Amino acid sequence: MTTTTRFVYRFRDGDAGMRDLLGGKGANLSEMARLGLPVPPGFVISTDGFREFARLDQQLPESLWQEVQEALKEVEEAVGRRFGDPDNPLLVSVRSGSKFSMPGMMDSILNLGLNDETVEGLAKAANDRRFALDSYRRFIQLFAKVALQADAERFEEVLTDARTKAGANDDADLSESDLEDVIRRFKEIASTGTEPFPTDARDQLRIAIRAVFESWTNPRAIAYRNHQHIPHDLGTAVSIMAMVFGNTGPRSGTGVCFTRNPSTGERALFGEYLPNAQGEDVVSGVRTPKPISELESEMPDSYNALVEHAKNLENHFRDLQDIEFTIENGRLFILQTRSGKRTAMAAVKTAVDMVGEGLISRDEALLRVPADELSQLLLPRFDDESKERAAKDGRLLGKGLNASPGAATGIVAIDGDDAERYGERAILVRPETSADDMPAILKAGAVLTSRGGITSHAAVVTRGLGKPAVVGLSAIHVDTKRGEVSVDGIVLKTGDAISIDGFTGEVFSGTIDTVPADISSNDDLRELLEWADEARRLEIRANADTPEDAARARAFGAHGIGLCRTEHMFFQEERLVHIREMLMNARHESTEAANGVYENALKSLEEYQTSDFRGILEAMDGLPVVIRLLDAPLHEFLPPIESLIENLAIARVTNGPEAEVREMEELLEAARSLAETNPMLGHRGSRLGVTNPDIYEMQVRAIFRATKDLIDAGKDPQPEIMVPLVMGEAEVKSLKAGLTELAKGLGEDLGRPARIHFGTMIEVPRAALDAGAIAPHVDFFSFGSNDLTQMTFGFSRDDAEEKFLRYYVENEILPRNPFETIDETGVGRLIEIAVKEGRKGNASLQLGLCGEHGGDPLSVDFCHRVGLDYVSCSPPRVAVARLAAAQAAIGQTERDV
Amino acid sequence: MTTTTRFVYRFRDGDAGMRDLLGGKGANLSEMARLGLPVPPGFVISTDGFREFARLDQQLPESLWQEVQEALKEVEEAVGRRFGDPDNPLLVSVRSGSKFSMPGMMDSILNLGLNDETVEGLAKAANDRRFALDSYRRFIQLFAKVALQADAERFEEVLTDARTKAGANDDADLSESDLEDVIRRFKEIASTGTEPFPTDARDQLRIAIRAVFESWTNPRAIAYRNHQHIPHDLGTAVSIMAMVFGNTGPRSGTGVCFTRNPSTGERALFGEYLPNAQGEDVVSGVRTPKPISELESEMPDSYNALVEHAKNLENHFRDLQDIEFTIENGRLFILQTRSGKRTAMAAVKTAVDMVGEGLISRDEALLRVPADELSQLLLPRFDDESKERAAKDGRLLGKGLNASPGAATGIVAIDGDDAERYGERAILVRPETSADDMPAILKAGAVLTSRGGITSHAAVVTRGLGKPAVVGLSAIHVDTKRGEVSVDGIVLKTGDAISIDGFTGEVFSGTIDTVPADISSNDDLRELLEWADEARRLEIRANADTPEDAARARAFGAHGIGLCRTEHMFFQEERLVHIREMLMNARHESTEAANGVYENALKSLEEYQTSDFRGILEAMDGLPVVIRLLDAPLHEFLPPIESLIENLAIARVTNGPEAEVREMEELLEAARSLAETNPMLGHRGSRLGVTNPDIYEMQVRAIFRATKDLIDAGKDPQPEIMVPLVMGEAEVKSLKAGLTELAKGLGEDLGRPARIHFGTMIEVPRAALDAGAIAPHVDFFSFGSNDLTQMTFGFSRDDAEEKFLRYYVENEILPRNPFETIDETGVGRLIEIAVKEGRKGNASLQLGLCGEHGGDPLSVDFCHRVGLDYVSCSPPRVAVARLAAAQAAIGQTERDV
Repeated sequence: MTTTTRFVYRFRDGDAGMRDLLGGKGANLSEMARLGLPVPPGFVISTDGFREFARLDQQLPESLWQEVQEALKEVEEAVGRRFGDPDNPLLVSVRSGSKFSMPGMMDSILNLGLNDETVEGLAKAANDRRFALDSYRRFIQLFAKVALQADAERFEEVLTDARTKAGANDDADLSESDLEDVIRRFKEIASTGTEPFPTDARDQLRIAIRAVFESWTNPRAIAYRNHQHIPHDLGTAVSIMAMVFGNTGPRSGTGVCFTRNPSTGERALFGEYLPNAQGEDVVSGVRTPKPISELESEMPDSYNALVEHAKNLENHFRDLQDIEFTIENGRLFILQTRSGKRTAMAAVKTAVDMVGEGLISRDEALLRVPADELSQLLLPRFDDESKERAAKDGRLLGKGLNASPGAATGIVAIDGDDAERYGERAILVRPETSADDMPAILKAGAVLTSRGGITSHAAVVTRGLGKPAVVGLSAIHVDTKRGEVSVDGIVLKTGDAISIDGFTGEVFSGTIDTVPADISSNDDLRELLEWADEARRLEIRANADTPEDAARARAFGAHGIGLCRTEHMFFQEERLVHIREMLMNARHESTEAANGVYENALKSLEEYQTSDFRGILEAMDGLPVVIRLLDAPLHEFLPPIESLIENLAIARVTNGPEAEVREMEELLEAARSLAETNPMLGHRGSRLGVTNPDIYEMQVRAIFRATKDLIDAGKDPQPEIMVPLVMGEAEVKSLKAGLTELAKGLGEDLGRPARIHFGTMIEVPRAALDAGAIAPHVDFFSFGSNDLTQMTFGFSRDDAEEKFLRYYVENEILPRNPFETIDETGVGRLIEIAVKEGRKGNASLQLGLCGEHGGDPLSVDFCHRVGLDYVSCSPPRVAVARLAAAQAAIGQTERDV
Repeated sequence: MTTTTRFVYRFRDGDAGMRDLLGGKGANLSEMARLGLPVPPGFVISTDGFREFARLDQQLPESLWQEVQEALKEVEEAVGRRFGDPDNPLLVSVRSGSKFSMPGMMDSILNLGLNDETVEGLAKAANDRRFALDSYRRFIQLFAKVALQADAERFEEVLTDARTKAGANDDADLSESDLEDVIRRFKEIASTGTEPFPTDARDQLRIAIRAVFESWTNPRAIAYRNHQHIPHDLGTAVSIMAMVFGNTGPRSGTGVCFTRNPSTGERALFGEYLPNAQGEDVVSGVRTPKPISELESEMPDSYNALVEHAKNLENHFRDLQDIEFTIENGRLFILQTRSGKRTAMAAVKTAVDMVGEGLISRDEALLRVPADELSQLLLPRFDDESKERAAKDGRLLGKGLNASPGAATGIVAIDGDDAERYGERAILVRPETSADDMPAILKAGAVLTSRGGITSHAAVVTRGLGKPAVVGLSAIHVDTKRGEVSVDGIVLKTGDAISIDGFTGEVFSGTIDTVPADISSNDDLRELLEWADEARRLEIRANADTPEDAARARAFGAHGIGLCRTEHMFFQEERLVHIREMLMNARHESTEAANGVYENALKSLEEYQTSDFRGILEAMDGLPVVIRLLDAPLHEFLPPIESLIENLAIARVTNGPEAEVREMEELLEAARSLAETNPMLGHRGSRLGVTNPDIYEMQVRAIFRATKDLIDAGKDPQPEIMVPLVMGEAEVKSLKAGLTELAKGLGEDLGRPARIHFGTMIEVPRAALDAGAIAPHVDFFSFGSNDLTQMTFGFSRDDAEEKFLRYYVENEILPRNPFETIDETGVGRLIEIAVKEGRKGNASLQLGLCGEHGGDPLSVDFCHRVGLDYVSCSPPRVAVARLAAAQAAIGQTERDV
């Protein structure tokens, strides 16, 4: 990089399209400045500056510093104050801001430029010494914490102490002399930092820029980027802007508002503010702010101006905006605007409404809703009766702010370790949350705070994550040291049950029953998904093994069953008996008696299967149902070998009844003979079909019989037979020959020559590599992406996650968990080969995917790009897949243009 | 196929190049006829005829039959007799013969054209009624067995009975009236066949042709083709030829000879004959024939003619010939010639000698020796002392014919089931063997017969298979019904130990120690392998884990170690202790004591490893040694979980000592925490290297230390470090970064900046697919074809073989066992992708293969074609790989031309 590279951009030089270079915050500040909105004067250090800083081993490039000083001069001129001037000092804010919003993850420093001299100048100029001292103590606190790594808790202790001494409820009630004392003690704490507290304003600025850059790589920022899949090499920009003050008295204030309700999508200004405060007081949740509606009566002019600016910003950016504002002595400033994080419900409503308002097109609406988040709409609600009972029993602890929707029954977790221990079942309970609590929030299933408003950290973050949250339930006291929550004498300890209703804000002790969400009543969603159905090319099927699941899938909009697994059908006790009889007697097939038992067991299983298939085919009447023949290895139908060994050892040592011992020995022998070192790579699926054809034949007979029954009853069953685990052409030919022969006979027996589609899973790497040869023998391929991922990576899903896969993902050795999102390098490439060569071998080949990736938007996008005909996913993911398929199709169009 | 297709070829129309169409036998008969050798007149029905026959559901095409009749007319004219003529009948032989020699596997019928009338005409014409009757009984016996599925044993019983009555030793001693009686009884047996015995000569011929065609698909032929990897769709031709008779009296005879010794390669006519007999008497081993040398004195003219023809045939075909001949009243006929099956020792000697004789080129010599069979040269010999001791103890049972070399100590197996049960350890003991014994011979490790000569079925087959055999040990009596072998009052039962020396013909009861073969004394082999080294492009390395193996590999001509596995090094008891200490204490790493134990254990292991590596590097001084870092999952170093469960259950029930129970519980807990559902796909190899870097670092330190020690001692160690199981670029980068850092430090510590090659196994399908990205970070790839096969197929090697893989291979669902020969469709394609893209990513990338396929000639050929730099195989396979690599290179040249 040469010295001529430009690192600093005045707001007037930038615009909203420069997010890469200026970060989201800087780009939008520039855009607002260009639009003539009341933005304080300022400039942005670009991400190029960050990269050069990183390249120089965390040193500010000299040319960057020169540019900053020049730009600062212009700010001084615009404001009419000079930076570091003891009489009338310019103060600035130094804020982080990367391309993608990472709320609260990185650091910012405000009120920069204060020292013992300038604070008096500020007091004089503002004619308000209390304000100047308040600003000074804020500066010391934040700067020492961010730039000098001082202990943040000690500052809070000093403030609490000062409030107690002064008998004040609020920092705003501290007097000048209280604040002088606070500042003195703050300086002492700051002096324990990593370097001396700088008094020179320029030194402060230089250190602050460095600290903001460095905050890109703090652990919580890294964790957040991992979670959100934000690349680590983007870096952050730094916005430097003249301070405006919301803490200059009752005609001042600061707040946050959304142009629409980010929780529900309702079209009305939504937000809150604090009089006589600086922005961090709102966001941190330390003080519970007032609803934005009260601003209308308190400061009508500022309110009206805010409504006007909010409307213009939304129209300009054509999206729901999240706006920070400050009112300084009655004058409104906009300090930030960005697309607002919202719940899935709000995202759907906003998108559909905006189409109605002519603000965006249908395609844009479809792209506005993160497909993955649609599953949030399926968050359960509390059962009304159960909730009423709980209230009657006196278990209602209170009602806080319904910050993020969803109902959660779980376990009280007060610190991060508890949240980690209980995982999804944890309900994290904190006085308030900050960026430091991010790891715990990511682990927990829901969040409850006693302080903070609907734009507090806890609220914003949980809405973004789609986790239920209730905030600002001031009735409760959270004792973090003792790990207890108390309210009116009721004490809940860590580990106790608690329930929170994110729809209503109610909080209960104990558990409450939940009921599944009913999305059919959401008209906006229905409309959006109808648009999606028009836009998408991929067909969406569901994986379902029971008539109930099939019906549910159909209600969610599935166009068929892409995978009906037959093994689960055998695990009910009355069926397991027969399959065990079959297995035990197949081992001694020489005797006639054994043969008889074997045949009878098969016949019983055939009756069960016929009725299974009839039920599913009826539920999906008129739509295809892909029935996968038995895939599981036979040993799964016997008791686990370890328990047999243990019981047998005990029975022998204790001289148990001989007959019992003999039976256990026989079971153990059978289990051992079926046991495998690596069952995943074992004798199952097509391999069983080849070596033990009776089972597949039984299943095919059952499919034919179920089909005939339904046809006779005037229905339109559409079964397709799928063979799992095949690895090559000869195997498929061999299986097909057997089943075709059988099908011919059955077709004749049953009075009509049924033509049933026949296909194979492609889930073994070799099958993908032999797809061109397999294709002419089948009607369809269905990619079993779960097993294909296991074999392509050599990962055993049962073990990998815990043993090393999580580590790999967290350390970016894998960009994502390949069991969640298709790995395009390996698995995806095999699929591409199979698609291309399969189609070449059989032009009418139908191609689908039925692994769990079918419900993952990125994987759906891949499936679209690679040219599959359908994806099949679990019923609750059908809506996700429909939307993702539409987004893929629209994205494809965009890519094509 | 149209009616104009030609199915029949006169001998004069064919030549040796037409093996596809005429089969080996027919093509060579044609060639001999063209050369003017004394071949009886005849013709061949081509394999096109076979295919048309198969297409018509086992019916002879009418045009084929017409052609046969026309050709037969010409034979009649040439011989001067007419087929079916009651006065002077032409008899013919109808023989099978496919492209590849399948000795004894298919059927032939001789003496065809006889019935109650023509037999008298033959008697009159030959002026020898006894001969005519003998021919008739042979015809009935063979035709009824082959074409009518009559019970073959009953014929033998009649003959035995007749000999007993007549007091004859030999069928040749039966009188006319004895034979008349035999014929009468034979006809009775024949009448129990599947259809009436045809008396019309043309009916006989038609049925015989059909039966020969059908014998292509008899079970033993199918089994043989599976074993020899001969395609099942080639089909057989049928040769029809005028009969000449070796059974017309003392001036007649029949025999088989090899132009060189097929056991040793010695250059001298080798063979045997029977006077007054037909060919099957020699081959079947029913009568023990005379050495060919005796023919010189008995029938000098015929002998001299035979020597002359043999020499001409060998010169013409430029290969060792296996010749069948018949002498009819002093006139010599050649009935067949083919390349003789030979032992590996003979193949090597013959090939090298023929180069010396100017008969063939070096390239031809290299192609003449089946590379796979070189491993036969490593067949063990008996330890001289042990043999002497056995002889002194009276355990020498006798000395038979040394039909096929090698020494075998094993278990007496008398029927096929026993051979199957004992497998390689079985020594099959039979009176004689026939094609029906083929499955048992394939299973058994060696063969012993009481009857038959060095060209008998047992001898020919075992030489072809490279299994030791002693035949014609007439001192022993084999009682197949009781499953016993007896000699001089000593009785060995099925299951008893027996030892046979195929080098000397000696047979002992009990076991005898064996010693490995020493190939260094085989000058011919050394010369051949030197030519191979000049011809090949692939480098040959060996897989070796100990200094002893390394030295052995070097002696076999390995140019380095391609795979040094480090896990086996930990399994000695004194090391296992340390690795267990390490594992148990890594689990509680919070305590300082545990940390200390852990560190000490690692240090101890480092000392062991340093000495391990020093030994191997020293043994391979100056040659590369690829050291694979730990690959095994850690649970392999703990006791098996099943035994822990069992012992713990017992200890608990029996109130065992508390401390013991607690220790077992702790071990079980550790074992459980390390246990995996699918260890093959588990937490091992690079995955351990990433999550538990201490072990890899310990190993790398040991490699550096060993290297330094040797350099200091003036040696030239060339270690290369290889990481197993990687699956992608980021993983390789991560591992390399850690090891490079360490290596840098070590290089400095040890006083010289060592540059050690760093590479990865490619054994996970995804690694092959990401090879282009991995390549720039490494010096070499080594394809781990074992694991790559497991993952590409989804086969667990531990289980697959027995559960389904054998079935798959036997039923042609897989052409070969992919763990023996690389599957080119799947595994091979992944290798090709990795080679191509790896080289593109790193032009200087070195490419090798170190799975067991490295010693398989077909796989070596693949490795050559795909452009690898080396293969690495087990030390005993090094010679095989050297030759195979040469053959691949020569083949490549041929393919290029």
